Amino acid sequence: MTLDLQPGQKLARGVARHLASHGFVSVEEFVPARGLRVDVMGLGPKGELWVIECKSCRADYQADSKWEGYLDWCDRFFWAVDIEFPTDLLPTRTGLIIADAYDAEIIRMGPEDKIAPARRKKMIQKFAMDAARRLRTLRDPRL
Amino acid sequence: MTLDLQPGQKLARGVARHLASHGFVSVEEFVPARGLRVDVMGLGPKGELWVIECKSCRADYQADSKWEGYLDWCDRFFWAVDIEFPTDLLPTRTGLIIADAYDAEIIRMGPEDKIAPARRKKMIQKFAMDAARRLRTLRDPRL
Repeated sequence: MTLDLQPGQKLARGVARHLASHGFVSVEEFVPARGLRVDVMGLGPKGELWVIECKSCRADYQADSKWEGYLDWCDRFFWAVDIEFPTDLLPTRTGLIIADAYDAEIIRMGPEDKIAPARRKKMIQKFAMDAARRLRTLRDPRL
Repeated sequence: MTLDLQPGQKLARGVARHLASHGFVSVEEFVPARGLRVDVMGLGPKGELWVIECKSCRADYQADSKWEGYLDWCDRFFWAVDIEFPTDLLPTRTGLIIADAYDAEIIRMGPEDKIAPARRKKMIQKFAMDAARRLRTLRDPRL
């Protein structure tokens, strides 16, 4: 199952499993708004929205110029990296998750900065449509 | 793909395809509240919620004593039946969809009776979590 995943996708899978243990669901490569694509968007039982960016190595992190734009689309923001990653590079005012392909652990919670109710409503609607569309594509590939 | 589906599931697949052509997504066997399970819950781009009950034959319809309980959980209610079904049996104040395993057509729109905003919000949240959880189960069966 894991052999054909890219390094970032392996992290994303471990993150998704860990989020599930918190009662969160998630979708990968979610587009909150045009031009933005987050690695993992997590949705909690009370409508909490968490963005998790998965970085496989230093270069992968340093090439990311967009992440600050994601802060406006979530209540909490996290980096997910593997155990070898030089975490000193990461801004301390962000969350930190150590992950592998099989599981993950939240080392530092991202500080909470709640998004506005209207945007939350729009994001949950978009999340619902996106997840259902992907589910349908897997179940009925003709669509 | 269709051989292992029950008659009601074939109708549900055709319904889902047709809903997609209206910009709706859907999940099957959705549970809006304890003790209720609708065949298809459709979610529209503006948060519209449609319930579609799929009936494969007269006996299947006549055995359903719960459908009126579903009206409180959607903006519109429809029956989906195949072309052979005696549609005169169905209440005229409900929507009607003629379906097969491959497609469907809305013959009569269900009258609109909008659900309350708080319930809509709760249903869309539930729909999102349900669709994402099923998607995850297909993509990562270990969960």
